[in-house]
Amino acid sequence: MSDTSDTSDFDSETESERIGLEHGAGGEATRKLVAETLASGFGDPEDAIVGLTGMDDGAVIPVGEENLVLTTDSHVIDPPFFPGGDIGRLAVSGTVNDLAVMGATDVRALTSAMVIEANYPVAKLERIADSMAATCEEANAAVVTGDTKVMGNGEIDGIVINTAGVGVAPHVTPDSAVEPNDVILLTDSIGEHGISLLAEREGIEFGSDLASDVKPLNDLLARALEVGGKNIKTMKDATRMGLAGALNEIAEKSGVGIEIREERVPVTSDVKGAGEMLGLDPFQIANEGVAVLAVAPKSAENVLDELREHPKGENAAAIGKGIDDHHGRVVLDTGIGSRYLREPASEPAPRIC
Amino acid sequence: MSDTSDTSDFDSETESERIGLEHGAGGEATRKLVAETLASGFGDPEDAIVGLTGMDDGAVIPVGEENLVLTTDSHVIDPPFFPGGDIGRLAVSGTVNDLAVMGATDVRALTSAMVIEANYPVAKLERIADSMAATCEEANAAVVTGDTKVMGNGEIDGIVINTAGVGVAPHVTPDSAVEPNDVILLTDSIGEHGISLLAEREGIEFGSDLASDVKPLNDLLARALEVGGKNIKTMKDATRMGLAGALNEIAEKSGVGIEIREERVPVTSDVKGAGEMLGLDPFQIANEGVAVLAVAPKSAENVLDELREHPKGENAAAIGKGIDDHHGRVVLDTGIGSRYLREPASEPAPRIC
Repeated sequence: MSDTSDTSDFDSETESERIGLEHGAGGEATRKLVAETLASGFGDPEDAIVGLTGMDDGAVIPVGEENLVLTTDSHVIDPPFFPGGDIGRLAVSGTVNDLAVMGATDVRALTSAMVIEANYPVAKLERIADSMAATCEEANAAVVTGDTKVMGNGEIDGIVINTAGVGVAPHVTPDSAVEPNDVILLTDSIGEHGISLLAEREGIEFGSDLASDVKPLNDLLARALEVGGKNIKTMKDATRMGLAGALNEIAEKSGVGIEIREERVPVTSDVKGAGEMLGLDPFQIANEGVAVLAVAPKSAENVLDELREHPKGENAAAIGKGIDDHHGRVVLDTGIGSRYLREPASEPAPRIC
Repeated sequence: MSDTSDTSDFDSETESERIGLEHGAGGEATRKLVAETLASGFGDPEDAIVGLTGMDDGAVIPVGEENLVLTTDSHVIDPPFFPGGDIGRLAVSGTVNDLAVMGATDVRALTSAMVIEANYPVAKLERIADSMAATCEEANAAVVTGDTKVMGNGEIDGIVINTAGVGVAPHVTPDSAVEPNDVILLTDSIGEHGISLLAEREGIEFGSDLASDVKPLNDLLARALEVGGKNIKTMKDATRMGLAGALNEIAEKSGVGIEIREERVPVTSDVKGAGEMLGLDPFQIANEGVAVLAVAPKSAENVLDELREHPKGENAAAIGKGIDDHHGRVVLDTGIGSRYLREPASEPAPRIC
């Protein structure tokens, strides 16, 4: 039987290459799938400033004299209503933030495409739509076009919302622009979205303060850009793969090292406690209203002061700097020694955003 | 018990308002859901040229000196591979066509956001990605940014692809611009997409010529605009609700009547035959590569000639005209009499696009 078993092994191997949950987690497996399968047939348009190959938070293309930023995200979060927010607030905030961290704090328009399970209660849809409208108002953004599809029971679980958005960026702040000595600023404490969501799923209560950080950041980042201008090199929201994922991505794309002082990274005691109970590291888990900035040293203090004066930036901190060493990697100074801060291999749980 | 039954009736009525398949069909039920629930909290941006309330194929907003057109669609078609195309070709064509019929035949960029079922074969994804790339090449378009999410088995059936797109329209051709005496042109024979898909689902074979019409139309419509310029008032692709749906929508939004000569509307004998066997009216079923144009009389013949010279417009025909009567309605002259051509109440089957 050994002759035929070789063939059947080969066959089953070929046929068994299948999508796993890790392919949707936004990390290494996702990037490999996109590069080798989904994007392999596409070249960037000649005039693209940041194209598909940039794999950034958004693409940047010229339209007339303007830099148009374009981004898309599908939101599959489970449960759709959670402490601190819901799928509607998440969808708008996620897209607004992807635009804003590319430099497009001026959000010109959003789209909203919903795929809804048959029998979904209209009252829940109303809550979601109201939440989207309120978040749009907060972000000075508007949904200008949409699409609605219904799939049968058992064909989709609840609701999936895709939001795409366009904005205009006078100064583009891509992942790839960090330089040695740039100061790394963080706009808020980390871990609240992912840890509160997983605590909710586990049915564990940790006190009333543990809630998602989901919020639009374009107003905050616009203030930073007013003060820092082109000295703000890179901005990135630390979403699916957490702060560790965001820092590793900008280090790798910029070809620099990044050194982070752990004690400077704000983490609330609620997040620390809940993270320990759930076995989750706040560095490795999703945020939905927290951004990282890399700022030239001469502007860093002014930008930090400006962030802290804004209600969404009260907890902002300078957490580290770019270094001309350990290129492409993130070094975490724990106070008692140094280690590489790695991005998580996959999301701690599916459908977190 | 009558006192309490009143209350429980009220409760159950409130709780039982639920989404049905008709809410995703693109017709009256969808428009009502969007107007009363999904869009009720949104106002159009002050500078919008065509906003959410226009409920057109895309929105139009100014960016610098340009008219930026923005559109989105989620594709839930079942099966994802069908005669004449697949979900990848459909996603790119659908979004390119929504841009093109607003006047943005110059497609600046597309997004692609996939939600994939865990265990989906990578080989199928490769076929879909290759098809998207090939269709982009045909349309001179490019996917510049994307998103990938994975849901568990039983949480989503196969794959859903959302494509959003942006384009620039020197001259905007909204649904609302038809005037009396404008000539109604149709770019191709109708019914092929919907009827071939449903025949495939039913397992019925009607000969090798019955296949979806799915294709990008921006090259064809660019030629029409070159010849017709501003004399082309309105363009619309006759998708989910068929030619009947598209004509009713432009008649209603333009506040004119539209008169159609049935004998002039090209329908292949395959579509006629299959439609009769399946009990489907070609006027009422989805097309994915057929557009309607309303053209001022003085340019109509030139535009029609130009369409016919293009491989995608060989079957183009002048099928009727705008009239200053029966405002908001479509009159079908059958040769033996006249009747109103109504839009379908709902899709003949879910997940047709």
